Amino acid sequence: MPLFQQMTIVGVGLLGASLARACREKGIVNRVCGFGRTRGTLEEAKRRGIIDAFGDTLSTSVKGSDLVVVCSPVTSIAPLVREMLPTLREGCLLTDVGSVKGPVVREIESFLPDRVRFVGSHPIAGGEKSGLNASTSNLFRRAKCIVTPTAKTDSGALEQTRQLWHGVDMDVIEMDMDEHDLVFGAVSHLPHIVAFALMNTVGSLRTAHYDNVASFSGGGLKDITRIASSDPVMWRDICISNRQAILDMIERFQGDLEQTRQWIERNESLPLEQSFQNANRYRMNLA
Amino acid sequence: MPLFQQMTIVGVGLLGASLARACREKGIVNRVCGFGRTRGTLEEAKRRGIIDAFGDTLSTSVKGSDLVVVCSPVTSIAPLVREMLPTLREGCLLTDVGSVKGPVVREIESFLPDRVRFVGSHPIAGGEKSGLNASTSNLFRRAKCIVTPTAKTDSGALEQTRQLWHGVDMDVIEMDMDEHDLVFGAVSHLPHIVAFALMNTVGSLRTAHYDNVASFSGGGLKDITRIASSDPVMWRDICISNRQAILDMIERFQGDLEQTRQWIERNESLPLEQSFQNANRYRMNLA
Repeated sequence: MPLFQQMTIVGVGLLGASLARACREKGIVNRVCGFGRTRGTLEEAKRRGIIDAFGDTLSTSVKGSDLVVVCSPVTSIAPLVREMLPTLREGCLLTDVGSVKGPVVREIESFLPDRVRFVGSHPIAGGEKSGLNASTSNLFRRAKCIVTPTAKTDSGALEQTRQLWHGVDMDVIEMDMDEHDLVFGAVSHLPHIVAFALMNTVGSLRTAHYDNVASFSGGGLKDITRIASSDPVMWRDICISNRQAILDMIERFQGDLEQTRQWIERNESLPLEQSFQNANRYRMNLA
Repeated sequence: MPLFQQMTIVGVGLLGASLARACREKGIVNRVCGFGRTRGTLEEAKRRGIIDAFGDTLSTSVKGSDLVVVCSPVTSIAPLVREMLPTLREGCLLTDVGSVKGPVVREIESFLPDRVRFVGSHPIAGGEKSGLNASTSNLFRRAKCIVTPTAKTDSGALEQTRQLWHGVDMDVIEMDMDEHDLVFGAVSHLPHIVAFALMNTVGSLRTAHYDNVASFSGGGLKDITRIASSDPVMWRDICISNRQAILDMIERFQGDLEQTRQWIERNESLPLEQSFQNANRYRMNLA
C-alpha cells in the first residue's frame, strides 16, 4: 500500500523530478502532481510520465495532496510554503529538499498552522548537473538524507518523512538544523565557493602569449573545478541563506590558506610538507 | 631505428617508469638504465623488465648513455645534474620532467659544460597517484609536453627532445620557461595548494556531535579534494621552487575569494550570481 495518496512536487528540476520517478517506481505514492515556474518543463514532465498532472497555480497544484515536497531554490522555499498554506489539506505532510535548514525551518515554523505538519529534509544527492533532463530514479539510492526535526515537530510527521526517504533507499539521519548548516557549510558550501573563485582566478589569467591558460590544465584542474559548473542561482541562494556558517567557513579556510602562503613565502618547507601530509590523511578518510 | 642507444632514467617513479615503458614499447631506445634512492624499487623495476640495469651510484648509472632523463622531485634536479656531469658521455642529451622550469633551467645552464646538451621538459601527465606501481606506457598519450628552450639551447638537442616526447605520443609545445611557471602556477600549482588547504579546513572541523564532518560529503568534496592526495614531498618542492609565481597566484585567488566573502557578508546577490556565472563559463571552456 502506498505511503501517500497524492504527492505534489513543487519545482520539477533534478531533485524534484528524480523524487517523483523514484516514488513512483517504489510505489510510495498513488498520484504525482507537479508545479513549477516554467510551463514547458511541466508539460515535458507530464509527457514523459514523471508527473500525472500539473496545475496552473501553486494552489491548484497542492490541492488534495497528503504530501508536498518543495524542491525549489532554498530562498524560495519558505515563501512558497506561506503561499500554499491556505489550500493545503488538513494533516498534509510538508517537507523540502533545501541545502540550508536553520533559516528555512525557523521561518516556516514561525507561520505554520497546527493543521499542517512540516519536517525539514536535505537529501544529499545531485551534483553539478541540474534540470529535468538530468533526473533519474536512482539519484537517492544509498545516499544520506538529513532530517532536522525541532521541538515543534510532530513525531508522526517525522516518522512519515523518514519512511519517505527510506523508501527511496536513503540512509536517514536526524540532525540539529544549525549543526546541519555548519556541517554542510563545510563539506559542500565552502568547496563550491572555493571552486567558483578558483575557476575565476585561473580563467581570467592572461600571460604574455596566452589568453586562455586553462587550456594547459591536466586532470587536476578539471577535478577541482567540476563543481564550478553548478547552478549559479541555486548557489547564490545557498550563500545568502547560510550566510553565517558560510562566512565562518570561508574565514577558517582563508586562515589555512594564508598560513600556507606564509610558509611558502618564508621557504618553510617542513610545516608545508606536514600540512600536505595532514591533507593526505584527511583525504584518505573521505573514500 | 631507435632514437637513442641507451637512456638512463633518474628516479624510477610514476613518470620515470612510465617513460621507460613507453620508450621501450615505441622502440625509441635500445637499452634502459635506472637510478634512484631506493634499491628495492630499482630491483622491482628490473625484475618487471621496466629497466634493463641499474647502477650502484649515479655515475655508473649514467655512464655511456646518450639520453638521461631526470624524473626526480623538482628541487633535486639541478643538484643531480651537477653530480652526474663528470661521467656524462660527450654529446649526451639531458632533459627532465620537472613541473617548475625557470629556476631549474637557469641553475643547470649556469654550470653546464659545452659537451653536454640540456633542454628543459615538462610532460603534463601523472596525477595524484605516484610510484612505480602506478606507471603505465600510456601515461603520456595525447597529453601536452612543454619544452622550454633558451638562448643557450642547442637546436639539435631541442629537435631530439621534441622527437622523444613526440615519440611517446605527446603534443610538444615550446614555451618561455618563466611563462611556463606562471601558467602552471595557475592551472596546476594553485589548485593543488587550494585543495590541500581546503581538505585541512574541512578535515579539522569539529561540531557538537561530529568529529569527522567530512563523512557527510557528497561527490563534490571528493572531486575538489582528489588532488589533496598528491605526494606531499613533491608538492612541497614545487611550492618552494616556483615560489614567486605561486605567491602571485595565491594572492590573486585570495583577492577573488575575499571579494566573494564580502558579497556574501553584504547580501549582494547580484554580483555573487554573476561571478558564479563567469565561473560556469570558464569551466565550460575547460572541457
